[in-house]
Amino acid sequence: MKVEKSSKGLEVLVRTQEDDLEGFSFLEIMDRVDPLPLDFENYKNFKEGIYYMCTHDGTKIGFVLKFAINEMETVCSEIFEETFQLDESRHELRFKSEDFDHRNNLIDQLARKMYLESSLSGVKGWRNEKYAVWVNKKPYVLVERAVAGVLGIITYGIHINGYVLDPKSKKIQFWVPRRSKTKQTWPLMLDNIIAGGLGYPYGIYETVLKESMEEANLEKSVIEDNIKATGSVSYLYFTGDISVTKFNKESDFIVGEVQYVYDLKLSEDIIPKPNDGEVESFNLFSLQETINALRKKEFKPNCALVMVDFLIRHGYITPENEPNYLELVTRMHRRLPFPTLN
Amino acid sequence: MKVEKSSKGLEVLVRTQEDDLEGFSFLEIMDRVDPLPLDFENYKNFKEGIYYMCTHDGTKIGFVLKFAINEMETVCSEIFEETFQLDESRHELRFKSEDFDHRNNLIDQLARKMYLESSLSGVKGWRNEKYAVWVNKKPYVLVERAVAGVLGIITYGIHINGYVLDPKSKKIQFWVPRRSKTKQTWPLMLDNIIAGGLGYPYGIYETVLKESMEEANLEKSVIEDNIKATGSVSYLYFTGDISVTKFNKESDFIVGEVQYVYDLKLSEDIIPKPNDGEVESFNLFSLQETINALRKKEFKPNCALVMVDFLIRHGYITPENEPNYLELVTRMHRRLPFPTLN
Repeated sequence: MKVEKSSKGLEVLVRTQEDDLEGFSFLEIMDRVDPLPLDFENYKNFKEGIYYMCTHDGTKIGFVLKFAINEMETVCSEIFEETFQLDESRHELRFKSEDFDHRNNLIDQLARKMYLESSLSGVKGWRNEKYAVWVNKKPYVLVERAVAGVLGIITYGIHINGYVLDPKSKKIQFWVPRRSKTKQTWPLMLDNIIAGGLGYPYGIYETVLKESMEEANLEKSVIEDNIKATGSVSYLYFTGDISVTKFNKESDFIVGEVQYVYDLKLSEDIIPKPNDGEVESFNLFSLQETINALRKKEFKPNCALVMVDFLIRHGYITPENEPNYLELVTRMHRRLPFPTLN
Repeated sequence: MKVEKSSKGLEVLVRTQEDDLEGFSFLEIMDRVDPLPLDFENYKNFKEGIYYMCTHDGTKIGFVLKFAINEMETVCSEIFEETFQLDESRHELRFKSEDFDHRNNLIDQLARKMYLESSLSGVKGWRNEKYAVWVNKKPYVLVERAVAGVLGIITYGIHINGYVLDPKSKKIQFWVPRRSKTKQTWPLMLDNIIAGGLGYPYGIYETVLKESMEEANLEKSVIEDNIKATGSVSYLYFTGDISVTKFNKESDFIVGEVQYVYDLKLSEDIIPKPNDGEVESFNLFSLQETINALRKKEFKPNCALVMVDFLIRHGYITPENEPNYLELVTRMHRRLPFPTLN
C-alpha cells in the first residue's frame, strides 16, 4: 500500500501491483488477533481442551483450558474446590457461591496462591488491578488481571489513537509509542498513543483520563479538548490454529477482549511524554511509515487492529483498496459469546 | 437525550432523567431494522416458512419464503421449474444452471412475469436496476431490484451523511432530505443526504458519485473534496417478530443489507438540491432536531441506523450516555449468513 496525493492534494492509500500479487489484505492483522472461526465450538481440540466457566446459575462467562484446571487443582486444590463445581460431563466449571463478596474473596485467594506457586508465567505478572466479569450489566466477580487468561474471561480496555493533521497539507501523522524493553508483555513493540485496561471500579472515560496522564503525561484539559469516543472493537484473542492447537499450554488461552476506541486530534505543539516507564519513546509516524510498520508486524497485534479501525473510519482504507472490506469491518466487531459490560 | 454545551463549549449529548425512567436506548433503532435473534434458525415459524436459495453447487445465498415459492409456482411455474430444483425435505431452492448468462436470463424472465402477473406489491415497483448476488467475490446471478425481496438476497447500497460543522461554535448540523410523497417506499420520511442501491455493474465509489448528482445535485468535484469512506453497517432487514410471524405475506420477507457508509463534510455555501424528484426538500437539522426526529421515528429505519453510526463515530453517542453501547456497535455490524461482495 502506497501513500499518494489525490488530484485534490489529499493523502490516499493506493494498492500496488505487489499488493495484488501477494494478495495483501488488512485482514492479516485481524488473523493475528482473532483467527478463531465462527464455529470454533465444533472443533475436536476445542471440545476436548476447553471448559466453560459459568455463574452459579449457569450463564457462561469464560473459556477455561482443561490444562488450566489441572494447574489450579495442583496448585490450590482446596480453594479451587471451594470456589467451583466441576462438571466433567458438561465441561463446565461453575461458581458455587451466590454471594458477590464471597466469590471475590475466593478468587482473590486462588489468584494469590497461583501467583506464589504456579509455574505459569502470566500469573507472575501480578498487576494489582481487578477486572470485573459483567453479567446483567453488574459485576459478577472481580478477578486479578494476572489470572484473566487462566479463567478466560472477557477483558475491557480503552485504546486511543493520537494524531496530528496538518490543516494545510492535509498530511496526517500518528503519535506512536514504542513499549519499554522492560515491559512484561510485548516489549519494544509499537502501541497506540494511550491504552489501558478497565480496572474495577474505574469507568470507561475515567480510565481514558487516568491512562492519558499515566502513559503520556497528557493532562485532563488537553484530553477533554481533543478527544472523541469513536466506537469499539471486539475479538477473541487467541494465537493458535484451532485445527491443530492442543490447548495444553499457557499460550493457548482464549480471552475475549473489548477495546473502547478513541481519536485524539492534537495540535503540533502538544507532545506526549513517557511518564510511568511503560513507554520508551513517542514518535511521529507519517501515514506511509504507519502502514509499513503495520505490514512489518511492528505493532502489538491489538494496537494494529485499533489503527486499522482508525484508517477505515477516516477513509484511508476503503472498499476500493481493501478486497475484504466488509469482512474486516464485520470481524473486528465480533459478537462475544458471553455477557458484556454494555 | 438533550444536547448541552460541555465546559469546553462542545456539543455533548446528555442522558435525561426521563431517558433513564423510560429505559431509552438507541438499540430501539436497531430493533426497527433487525430484530432477528442470533438463533433465528431455531424458531419453529422460521423453520417452517423459510427455504434457502442456493447456488447450483449448494452455497446458501438467500432466504425465500414458502409463501413466495407458492406465488412463483402459481404465476410462472414453467420458468420457476426451469430455474430451480426445489428440495422440500432440505427446504432448499437450488439453481439448476451452471452458466451465469443462463441464470440471468431465467431470473429475468421470472422477474418480468412476476411484475406482470403477481399481486405482490413489491414487484410492481420495477426499478430497471440489477442487483448482483456475490459468491466468491464474483457475481453469481443478476436480479432485478424489485424481486430482491422475493428471493431474499443480500442487497448493497451506499449511504452518505452530509453535515456542516461550524468551525467556531463547533455546532453540527445535518443535511436531512424528506423523501418525496410520491416515492413508492417510505414516502415523506427523513433520509440521509444521499443514498442509493449498488446497481450492477457500478462500483461502490462510482455509485457514490452517481447518486450524489442524481439525488442532491452535488457535483463530482464537491464530493471528491469533502467525502470520506467511514465503514459499513450490515443487518438482516425484517419487520416482524420471529416468535409469532407466520412468514405468509410480503411484509415478512427477510433481506440481508449492507450499507457502505460515508461522511460528507460541507461548508455552509454548498446547498444540496432535489434533482430526480425522489426528494421533496433538504433541510438543515441541528443535533437536537436530529435526535428528536430519530426518537420520533421520522427517519426511514435504515437511515436512522446510519445516523446512529455517525453519532457513535463522532463521539456524540458514547459508552457513558448509551447503556447498550457495545451491543449496539456489535449488532449494527451483523455477520450475514451468505457470501458477500467484499
